[in-house]
Amino acid sequence: MELFHVGLAALIERNENFLVLRRSPSKDFAPNSWEPVTGRLEQKEDPRDGILREIGEETTIKARVLMPVDTWFFYRGGKENPMVFIVFWCKHVEGEVKLSWEHTEYRWITLKEAASEPALKLFHRCFERVEKLKQHLPKDFAF
Amino acid sequence: MELFHVGLAALIERNENFLVLRRSPSKDFAPNSWEPVTGRLEQKEDPRDGILREIGEETTIKARVLMPVDTWFFYRGGKENPMVFIVFWCKHVEGEVKLSWEHTEYRWITLKEAASEPALKLFHRCFERVEKLKQHLPKDFAF
Repeated sequence: MELFHVGLAALIERNENFLVLRRSPSKDFAPNSWEPVTGRLEQKEDPRDGILREIGEETTIKARVLMPVDTWFFYRGGKENPMVFIVFWCKHVEGEVKLSWEHTEYRWITLKEAASEPALKLFHRCFERVEKLKQHLPKDFAF
Repeated sequence: MELFHVGLAALIERNENFLVLRRSPSKDFAPNSWEPVTGRLEQKEDPRDGILREIGEETTIKARVLMPVDTWFFYRGGKENPMVFIVFWCKHVEGEVKLSWEHTEYRWITLKEAASEPALKLFHRCFERVEKLKQHLPKDFAF
């Protein structure tokens, strides 16, 4: 019986920019690094509900999920924590960012910045995918 | 520590049609029902590698993953089996379908058939998403 933690991330778009946060120095995993909103799925939770919960907890903003754009497997901090990660392209709906204890700074950056910033290396592929999809999909695309 | 099984499905496209399979009567879950290629992620396996493995095991064809299009949570057969499901849009690369013991029939059907066939209800939303994406993305779209 193969069991996994499920990690989630949100690439949140607002006026052609995307939200990135700086992890607090007290985080056990990757302190001080830059990342999109991330979090862990809770039991009985749909992944789309889970990422919206995390967005609320980490930023207080309201967003909607557009679509998943990437997924991968990794060990989060050790072999005892196998994790499947799912990354969603999301759109800002309303509200301004108010950070929780989990982060110390935030920035709204362009896709080109996001896909080239060394501190966001883990997410370059996801941002590149969103950039490629945005070349073809209408601005108001939704399912 | 919330842990999940991870289920995978592939909507495999070939010449504008999509592959669906009929589950064997001996399957413990949903016998005789129609479905895309599905399977369960194995330990240390990337979800994209996992779905390509399942495609090979269930059909012998070679395919490539285009992108994830949907994800959801459900209990597979009971509360002891919480599962996160990830659905991929895939493209046929080469080979003809040869079924394993897991299925008894297969069909290549149009997106309209797939999104309206009652036996595929669980996957209607995924097929509708692919249909919507195909309205905008070029035929040779790839990341």
